[in-house]
This record gives sequence, C-alpha cells and structure tokens, in this order.
Amino acid sequence: MKPSSSRSELFGGILAHSQVAALVSDETWLTILLDVESALARVEAEAGLIPMEAAEAIRKACRPYRFDIAELGAAAADDGNPVIPLVAALREAVGPAIAPSVHYGATSQDVLDTAAMLIAKLALRVIWEDLDGAAVAAAELARTHRDTVMAGRTLLQQAVPVTFGLLAAGWLTGIRAAQDGLRRIPLAAQLGGPAGTLAGLGPELPERFAAALGLAAPVLPWHTDRTRIAELAGALGTACGAMAKVARDVTLLAQTEIGELAEGKPGGSSSMPHKRNPVAAVSTLAAAAQAPGLVATLLAAMPQELQRAAGGWHAEWRPLRELLTATGSAAAWLRDCLENLVVYPDRMRANLPPGPVDTGHAAELVDRALR
Amino acid sequence: MKPSSSRSELFGGILAHSQVAALVSDETWLTILLDVESALARVEAEAGLIPMEAAEAIRKACRPYRFDIAELGAAAADDGNPVIPLVAALREAVGPAIAPSVHYGATSQDVLDTAAMLIAKLALRVIWEDLDGAAVAAAELARTHRDTVMAGRTLLQQAVPVTFGLLAAGWLTGIRAAQDGLRRIPLAAQLGGPAGTLAGLGPELPERFAAALGLAAPVLPWHTDRTRIAELAGALGTACGAMAKVARDVTLLAQTEIGELAEGKPGGSSSMPHKRNPVAAVSTLAAAAQAPGLVATLLAAMPQELQRAAGGWHAEWRPLRELLTATGSAAAWLRDCLENLVVYPDRMRANLPPGPVDTGHAAELVDRALR
Amino acid sequence: MKPSSSRSELFGGILAHSQVAALVSDETWLTILLDVESALARVEAEAGLIPMEAAEAIRKACRPYRFDIAELGAAAADDGNPVIPLVAALREAVGPAIAPSVHYGATSQDVLDTAAMLIAKLALRVIWEDLDGAAVAAAELARTHRDTVMAGRTLLQQAVPVTFGLLAAGWLTGIRAAQDGLRRIPLAAQLGGPAGTLAGLGPELPERFAAALGLAAPVLPWHTDRTRIAELAGALGTACGAMAKVARDVTLLAQTEIGELAEGKPGGSSSMPHKRNPVAAVSTLAAAAQAPGLVATLLAAMPQELQRAAGGWHAEWRPLRELLTATGSAAAWLRDCLENLVVYPDRMRANLPPGPVDTGHAAELVDRALR
Amino acid sequence: MKPSSSRSELFGGILAHSQVAALVSDETWLTILLDVESALARVEAEAGLIPMEAAEAIRKACRPYRFDIAELGAAAADDGNPVIPLVAALREAVGPAIAPSVHYGATSQDVLDTAAMLIAKLALRVIWEDLDGAAVAAAELARTHRDTVMAGRTLLQQAVPVTFGLLAAGWLTGIRAAQDGLRRIPLAAQLGGPAGTLAGLGPELPERFAAALGLAAPVLPWHTDRTRIAELAGALGTACGAMAKVARDVTLLAQTEIGELAEGKPGGSSSMPHKRNPVAAVSTLAAAAQAPGLVATLLAAMPQELQRAAGGWHAEWRPLRELLTATGSAAAWLRDCLENLVVYPDRMRANLPPGPVDTGHAAELVDRALR
Repeated sequence: MKPSSSRSELFGGILAHSQVAALVSDETWLTILLDVESALARVEAEAGLIPMEAAEAIRKACRPYRFDIAELGAAAADDGNPVIPLVAALREAVGPAIAPSVHYGATSQDVLDTAAMLIAKLALRVIWEDLDGAAVAAAELARTHRDTVMAGRTLLQQAVPVTFGLLAAGWLTGIRAAQDGLRRIPLAAQLGGPAGTLAGLGPELPERFAAALGLAAPVLPWHTDRTRIAELAGALGTACGAMAKVARDVTLLAQTEIGELAEGKPGGSSSMPHKRNPVAAVSTLAAAAQAPGLVATLLAAMPQELQRAAGGWHAEWRPLRELLTATGSAAAWLRDCLENLVVYPDRMRANLPPGPVDTGHAAELVDRALR
Repeated sequence: MKPSSSRSELFGGILAHSQVAALVSDETWLTILLDVESALARVEAEAGLIPMEAAEAIRKACRPYRFDIAELGAAAADDGNPVIPLVAALREAVGPAIAPSVHYGATSQDVLDTAAMLIAKLALRVIWEDLDGAAVAAAELARTHRDTVMAGRTLLQQAVPVTFGLLAAGWLTGIRAAQDGLRRIPLAAQLGGPAGTLAGLGPELPERFAAALGLAAPVLPWHTDRTRIAELAGALGTACGAMAKVARDVTLLAQTEIGELAEGKPGGSSSMPHKRNPVAAVSTLAAAAQAPGLVATLLAAMPQELQRAAGGWHAEWRPLRELLTATGSAAAWLRDCLENLVVYPDRMRANLPPGPVDTGHAAELVDRALR
Repeated sequence: MKPSSSRSELFGGILAHSQVAALVSDETWLTILLDVESALARVEAEAGLIPMEAAEAIRKACRPYRFDIAELGAAAADDGNPVIPLVAALREAVGPAIAPSVHYGATSQDVLDTAAMLIAKLALRVIWEDLDGAAVAAAELARTHRDTVMAGRTLLQQAVPVTFGLLAAGWLTGIRAAQDGLRRIPLAAQLGGPAGTLAGLGPELPERFAAALGLAAPVLPWHTDRTRIAELAGALGTACGAMAKVARDVTLLAQTEIGELAEGKPGGSSSMPHKRNPVAAVSTLAAAAQAPGLVATLLAAMPQELQRAAGGWHAEWRPLRELLTATGSAAAWLRDCLENLVVYPDRMRANLPPGPVDTGHAAELVDRALR
Repeated sequence: MKPSSSRSELFGGILAHSQVAALVSDETWLTILLDVESALARVEAEAGLIPMEAAEAIRKACRPYRFDIAELGAAAADDGNPVIPLVAALREAVGPAIAPSVHYGATSQDVLDTAAMLIAKLALRVIWEDLDGAAVAAAELARTHRDTVMAGRTLLQQAVPVTFGLLAAGWLTGIRAAQDGLRRIPLAAQLGGPAGTLAGLGPELPERFAAALGLAAPVLPWHTDRTRIAELAGALGTACGAMAKVARDVTLLAQTEIGELAEGKPGGSSSMPHKRNPVAAVSTLAAAAQAPGLVATLLAAMPQELQRAAGGWHAEWRPLRELLTATGSAAAWLRDCLENLVVYPDRMRANLPPGPVDTGHAAELVDRALR
C-alpha cells in the first residue's frame, strides 16, 4: 500500500497561510535532518571520535536532493521512524569505509528531536514576526483611536462606554504576552545515544553539538522528559487563544447591525456577490481553534516509558507540526486583518445612546499600554 | 506568500499508513467536489431548474485535470473556502451562456459538506475493512488460544490466571463495538442555498440530490447543526481507543521480560541492530493517540453561529481529515499487527506461578464472544 | 492530610444547575454501590453460590446511613478505590459468619462500573427530559414563528432572509439528534471477578445480575474494553455541542444592536442595574464548553492495560461525573432559556433591508421538521 | 430545583489527595472573595474614594460565617455569578449608609478574578512544595543509585544498560522543569470596573489594590485578555505530564515480571489479598490524566468577547479549580510514591543479560543533574 500524503494545498491557503507551512514541510525536514547528521559528524571529528575525513565526506553526502522522501517515508514504516532509513541511505552514499562514522553513537531520536527543535526555532521566528506585525498594527489602532468612543459590551449587551483605543490596547497586551511566552521557550539539542548514557560519545559532546547548531545544551538527554515540548505547546496554545480573542472581536464589531469595523480585503461569496465577509478574522479563528486539541494531544503524550517511548514520542510528530502551522497561519491572518482594518468612528458614536459619554481613564490606560 | 502544504510523506509511512490518506488528499477532494457540482446540475436539470444541455456541459467540464489545485487553494484564501474559486473556474470553463447554471441556487457549504460526507463514506469503508481484518485476526487468536493459560494482570501486577483466548476475545468485542459504531453514522447530503431556505431550489431537491450521490437526505439543511460531524467524530474516537487498548496490550506482552507475544515483522533500530521493536503496535498507539484532541476540536467547533458560522465550520476541515487519516492508519497497523502476531504459549505458562491453574469460565466466555 | 472535597455549591448554581448534580453526588454513589452489592448477593443466593440467609443479611446491612463517606474516601486512598473499604465495612457489619458471602467472587471494578452505569442511566433520564423540554419549546417557537421573517446571517454578515421559525426548527433537529444519540447508549452491567474469568461465579451470573439491576448484559466482562464509556462520552459531547449552538444564537440575537430575542428571566449586574444579561444562554454555553475536554479525557483513558488498568480506569471517575453534570446543567439552562424566550418579530422585520422578502421554502421546511 | 453539589469525598481520597482541594473549596472561595472586597474598600478609602469608616465597617462585615454558601450559589444562578449576590448580602450587612461604598466602582469579574489569582497562589505554593518533596526524593534516589546498573528499555524492549541513578536523575530534571514553570506564572490582580475603564476609580488604584493583596499589577485590566489563565494552565499541564512520566515508569518497573521497584505502602485488593498494587503511582497517573482535557478547555475559552465574555469566562471556573486540584493530587501522590520507593538493585542486575556492563557516562550525567 502506497503511503499517501495528507497534505493540502486546497485548504492550505486558509489553514496553512504562512511560511511556517514550508518550514514544517518534508523538504525542510529532510534538509534539517541532514544538517543535524552533518553537524554531529563534525563535532565528533573535532572530539576525535571519528576521522575528520569521514566528517567531511558525510558533510558532502548530506545533500537533500540525493534522497527520495517517498522512499524514506515508506521505509520508515518498517523501522518506526524516518531517521533509520535515512541513516542507512547516508551510509550507503558514503560507502563502507565511512559508513561506521555516520550517526556514530547516536540514536534516531537524537537526530529527530534536534531537527524538531531547529524547525521549531525557524517557525517561532516567523510566528513571532507576524505576531509583532499584528502588535504594531494593534498599537497603531490604539494610538489613533485613543479617544474614539464606542459602546462597551459585556455578555454582548451594551454596558458603559469605552474607547476603541482601549479595546485595541487590550489586544496589544494579549499579543505581547504571547510573544513573551514564545521567547521564553527552551529549545535544546538532543544527544544521548541509544539509552541516553552518552556511551561512546563522552559527556562533553552534547554541549559542542548544541553549540554547533545554535541550540541550548540540556543538563541530561531528554528522550522521555518532554517538558520542553509541553512548554512549547503551552506557549503556542496561549498565542492562538490571544489571537482568537482579537479575531472574535473583529467579527462581532463587523456585524452588519454593528458595522464599527470592516476588513480592508473582505472575502466574497459563491452565492451572494454583495457580501463582504471578514475572511482574515474568520481564518484566524479557524486556525487558532486547532490549538486546544493539539496542545492536549502533546500533553497527553508526555508519560513516555523508561528510556524511550512505545508510541508517545511518535504521537508528537503530527501535532507539533500542525500546531506550528496553525499558529503560524493564525498569526499571518491576524496581521493581515489588523494591518488592513477599517474603523468607523462615526458608527461607533452612533451606536452609543445619546448624551454625555464618560470613558473613565481609558486614555491613560492606552498611554500606559503604549509605553 | 505562497501557501505551502503541510503534507508529509516522510512521516506518512507511519502516521498515514492506509488508503484513507489518499481518500482525503487534495486530488480526491477536487474530484469529489466536481462530482457534487455535476450531480447538482443533473438533478436541477431533471427538476427543470436549469436546461438539460447546461447540466451536460457542466458534467463534461467537471474533469479534475482541468483545475489547478495550488491556484484554487491560493484563491480560497481570498474567499474563505475553496468552493468559491472552483465555481468561478467551472463557470469560466463552461462559458458565459452556461455559467449561470453552474452551482445554481447553491452555497459553497452545500458542496463542501456534501463532498466531506462522500469522502467520509469512502474512508469509513476502508477503515471498516481494516477493523474487520483486525477483528477476524483477533477472533482467530481467541479460537486458537481458547485454552492457552496465561497470567492475568491487574494494575500491571500478576493476579489470577486467564487465557490468552479470553484476552483476544476482549480485543474482539472492543473492535466489533467500534465497527458497529461506525456503521451507525448518519452521512447525509447538504443542500440549502445561501441561508438554508432552498430559495430557488424547491423543497424536493435535497432528496433527489442525496439519492443521486448515495447519501441520506436530511430533514433540514444542517449548515450549523453539526451533530452529524460530532457523531462521526465520536465513533472514530471510540474506534481509536478500542484499537489503542489492543496495541497497548501487545507492547506490554512483548516486553523482553514477559516475552509472551512478538510481532511477526518487528522493526529495527538505528543503533541496536539486534532489537525487535513492535513497530505495528507502537504505530497503532501513535495514530490512535491523535484522536482525543481531534474529537475535542470538532466538538468545540459545534456552536456555529446562526445561518453559517464565522470560523467554526472552517475549523472542522483539518481535524476531520486528520481524524479519518489517523483512524485509518491505526486500523491498518493494528490489522498488520494482529494478522502477524506470534504467540508463545510456553512462555505464558512459564510466567505463571507453578501449581494448578483455574481459569474459571474463560473458555465459555471465548465461545460466547465467537458466536 | 484530610482529603478535602472539591464540591462547589457556590458555583454549582450556575455549573451544576440540574438534578443530575444530586445523582452524581457521594450520597447517591454510596446508595447505588450498596444496591449493587445487595443485588449481587441476591442473584448469587438464587444461583446457590451463597446462602439465601446471607443475601438477606447483606440486603439489610446495605443501608447508606450506616457508612461514613469521609472515612470510606480516606480509606480508598490506601486501597486505590472506594469499593475496597466499602466491602470491608459491609463485611464487618454483617459479622464473620456472613462476611465471606459479601462481594462473593466479585472485584471492585465489577461493583463500581455497574454503579456508574446505573447512575448514568438515572442521569440520562433527567438530561433527556430537559432536552425534551427544550425541544418542545423549540418546536413551539418554530410553529409560532413559521412565517416570521428575519435576516439570515452568514459569517455574522446579513445574507438573504430566513424565518425565525426555520432557525428554531434547526435548533429542534439538533436537539432531537442529541436525544436520539443518548437513547442509543448501551448501559451494561459489569461482572467478571478479579481477572474477568467469572471464576467461582459461573457463566450465567452476569445475565441474572444485569437483569436484576435493569441493565443490559454484556457478551464479556468489559473491565478494559471501554467502548461503552466512550460512546456515552461521545453522545454527551454531541448533546452539549447541539445545545451550545442554540445558546450562541440566543446571545447573538439578544445583542443590544440586534434585539430580536431576549430572555424572559434575564440576570442583573453588580455594577450596572439596568443590564439584562442572557444568563440562561450564557450558562448553557459555559456548561457545554466543559464537554470537549472531558470527552477527550475519557477517550484518552481508553487504552487500559491487560485485565485491569493501572490508572486509566481511575482517570475516568472524575470526567464521567463532570460530563454528566455539565450536560445536565446545560440541558436545564437551555430548557429555561427556550421556555421563556421573548421574540420581537417587529425588530426582526426592522433589521431587514426594506423591500420584498423571499424566504424560499422556509415554511415548508418548518412543517417538515415539525412533522 | 435545588442546585446540588458535585463534591466527592468518596473519590476525593484518590483524586483530591492534597491540601489544594481545601484551597479551592467553597469555604476558601468565600473567605477570599470577602478578603478582596475588604482590600478594595481599604485602598479606595486610602485614595479618598469612600469614607475610611465605610472601609472599616466593610472589613468588619467581611466575616465568612455570616454568609450562606448555598444561598449565594442559588442566587448566583439568577445573576450569572456568585459575586453579585455576595455584594448584595454585604451591602445589606453594612446597612444603607455604608452600602454604596461596598464594591465601589468595581465589577463582579474584578473580584472573582482577583480571588482566583489569590487561590491559585496558595495552591501553587502547596503544589510546588510537593513537587519539591518529589524532586528531593528523586535526587536522593539518583545519588544512592548513581552506580546501580539496570537494563535500558526502549519501546519496552531491553536495549543497552543504564543506571537507575540516571533514570531517577531524568525524573528529577523533569520535575525541576515543572517547578521552574510554575514559578514563572504571572499572578496579577484584576481591577477595571464594568468595562475596564477604571471609571470612578482612577488609574493608580489597580497598583495599590494589587500591592495590598500581594499580587502583581497588570498594565491593563485583563477581563478578556486571558493569557494569564492560559499560562497557568500550560504550566500545570506540563507539571502533570512530568509527574505522569515518573509514575508510568514506576508502574512498569514494579511489574511482577520485572520487580525492580515496589511502593513502600502498596494498596490491597477487594478480591486478592496477596496483591500489592502501586497505588501511589496509579493515583498519580489518574490525577495527571485529567490535565490535557482541562488545559484544552481553558485554552478553548480564551476568545472572550469584547469587554466581558458571554460564557467563556464562566467556562473557566470549573476547569481552573479542577486543574489545580488534579495537579495538587498528582504532586502529593508522587511525593508519597518517591519518598517510599523500594529499589531492588539485585533484581535490576539479574534482569540484565550476563556479561560486562557498559553504562557509558551515566555516572557523570547523574553528577551533573545533582549539581
């Protein structure tokens, strides 16, 4: 049976609307897995564990175009993970003399986990940038509309007045909190060998290996200590929730009957050409809604058995990739949404009951959030 | 920004190990979406809503190779779903005279939901077949080992004796319950037009449309009544749990120190060539572990607003496809696992404390389960 | 350390707003656990396994007021479940001559699972009744407002017109689907003895035991086949989603700016006495929002090890009780909401753009749903 | 209908096995809610917003024993939250002259969220202490068994040798990471008034209010910016996963056939008096298994509408309390488990194949983890 892909370009325009999708693609994975094998060989050669020539030969062999992703994937099904056939192919590529130096002393999970951290690092950068774009746009809205009065709405009922600036400032603080959370994520290399004892590798190698790849060095191999994955998941889930809050507000304020906001590039309809759907906000909501379930899946996979797990580790691959994709997509959509948001101050004023308007200390709060 | 795919052939060998992956692919989606548009045109022509020649022209234009998936996906990002650009492309393909007859009176969600149900139907057939293969294998194990004594284990401590036949019979009843659950799923066509009033379509059209596609006809359009999706999700989640129970047992009984079971085609190791990993059971566990989070995502998407949702509907597309893929993969792996399972009755006997063995009415229970 | 309770009357008015809360209380649990022990003794006496006088003595001893819930709970922490200390206390109560006949041949899980099914049966009846009340109210709204025109809203933007009757009819079909799902749940007794072999009990006993308690008899003991729990969870999750859809619609249509619906008994505000919050709809949403996570927890607990689980079974107790409570609360709130809903047809008409209104076949669809 | 409680002392011995259960009880909630009202009055008096005598009268009236929890809970159902009837009762208690000074300028959510943060703070302290006890015990095991060889097990198959010290050191790093995560949680007071504008309160009041209660002061009111709740949830979920990993290992190594670990205070069985169940590890697993679903529920509740949510906020109350309880229970159980763990080095050695044993750099890694 040909293991087919579960890709989607058809739905990807909406649900994978970010460069993150490319960063979690098979092509990037293959490239990064080879980078990790190459870096491993290099630091092992520097430590005198394998010949320097072997490391050089391995580096040269680590060219993605030489490897067939579909073949590796099919073989992975026999072995339990794609690194096993990749190492076999790499050993074949370098020939029998160099082969023993490939993947020397390492285990598949060392390479796959390290690659996952590198991919997460790349993805987090893109996500962070789009969140930053969204934050800048929210700040701009807060500044511009510092004194734009509108109805406050609690439980979807009109309450006392607020300003649109204060609402946007609240969006800003949520997005900034999400960014801070993502910045704190500990992305460490993984190197321990088959049972995490560094047998044949030496206690100093993980640090060198991590440094070579620009990752942190962990105290111990973390094959079955998945707190790093959980913290990453939690931060991404928090970011999705913060973004969904903003998008929900946009869809509510863009309602026909409220009409206080509109998207600058609204979507059409297959049946009603006059409609102006808030597609960016809706897509943000759809992408962000993936997070709670994916976070739960990653947390539920944490009780991993003894030295390496019987299923829990394998269960992480899909949700980690999907969670990065979903968060990336939500961030890109939200940035689009906020950068192009159209605000109708007159409508905001008109929706308030007539009479004097007391917005309390909204303006000072906006100033404080913008500081 | 090019919306890239989130496909994976690299991990697909393990996590998408079933024909279901092909059934949820973009290629199948495009084909089925076109089938739905074509069927709609036909029943509309039969009802006299559009000319018969238009329906014929539409049928001829509904050839998947004429449409570019990547282009449709990119355009979907502007419109909020891929049916909008598909209808536009189809209208262009048939020319201005026929164009108004394309997608006549329908809304995007009519076509997308109906296609989703058709895809689910195809996927459920594959899943059901693999579950059936697993059930037949479990039944065969129960029959063969009706009287093979082994230690009962509760809380992972040896308790009173059982038979392996009884354990396998328990696997069988779980799998059969999962199959029954999947058979009960109501897969109905969707047709309501922009706000579900059948304006321009007529009250009889949904039934004809459903019949033409081999789906049930719903009482009402169900654009925002997602109980069908929830029931499908629940049944798939139940199936995954039932399969994971079996796979967990296999990994436990295959432990080196217990050694009562082994997989017929175990996997290797990148670092320890002697190892014989229970890859099929581990992969079953990894695939099945996706289900609880995906089911939660689909349930959480149910409160869809008024006539059509602002995000909740879009949030279903990914988890529904992923849940079908994961369940399909788990079923294919479990079938592999059970069809090739190696049983060591001597080891089972040896792991029991010496002395007489009372397995109660285990044999009668096996007979009852096999009836 | 005194194991304290996690009860809440303070929040229970909102989150446990149904008789279901009483049915999952410790008091009911104790009563039902004793009923199960008593029924077990009776059918065992009838089968000649224990003396009839013993069964009679046990029946007399099974009085809830004789047992101290807090003591049982504390002792449960030593043993791993509350049935172990309950059996010990019951044996003490009947004296040494009868003691061996108490819980004869059974295991804790037999009694606890059977009690859980009896409690679920009672709770489902209450939930079903409240759902029925909500359905009747929705049907009445559909009938009354069969021809009341209102704006259709898709993605929260005004689309083509509909009728409020059609919207209410859609609520009705969702609730009816949820009711049907709950009616299909298989609630079976559990009886297998320590490792499920019926050792010392006989193959006919489960059927008699089930009949005595008004439950179905399973083919096999289901100590680690949790498909029944999963199906129950799925049906409750589906019901919560169906209810949340209705409540979300109510909150949206009750918005100050839309004003087409209002609750008959709205809530106040600690700070704004004039506010009229749709408390029943909001509370329905809050209760229903508990379901997806609870369903996921129950599904994730399914891979239970061998003859009895090391944690997975224990992990079910809380979410099963909470899911019944949440669904019961949502159903009671939704019934309150719909039975007292105030509809403003004039406002519905006023919110439509001026001009002729075509609601398609909305009226026929309402008639069909009411049939 | 009397809103009954969903407490459980019967199951609480296992699932609420920690002082945290008392900290999230209604009694504590009531006390803390009154503390918050009292502190609010005090800082308002200091700011000249209400008379000092009023603050003093309010302080004196804030005695928990004067209020009836069941009555407040029932009234909460009418109003949508328990602070509204509490404020009403407090106003009645102080008499009409002082009444306007009670809860001056605040909204229910200000008081409830602040109380929730105070309760979380108390609970986190208890959880942190129990985690610390577990960490100290793990460190002691790592130190004592620095050189105790045992089989490494990957995918539950014997792989290369390790030491028990290294395994325990891995438990230690996981627990320490969880502790660090909990320490980083931002617990801020909430004060904004009805729509978060601080109308009538002044921009400096939140800082004073926070300081008076020992909480951080937020930049803005965070009524609908729930990133704090999400970060708390993520850290608790991570802690539960880290603990479950340890407990899973204990259950596996305590298997009859492996016999390398045993609990010091194992549990009994209702049917098999000889059994020695690892109750503490099993209960840790059961409690920790609650977390993924609860975290998902809290994350899914994040998109809260505009100034205050229509359901999302109310949906947080239960899962937050349950998540604190579950994490507290898991921590208490794990501490029990590790502090009393019995290690069988001879059995560990005997389970290894005969011959020389190379545990690589396990000892150095242990030393590093203990530093």
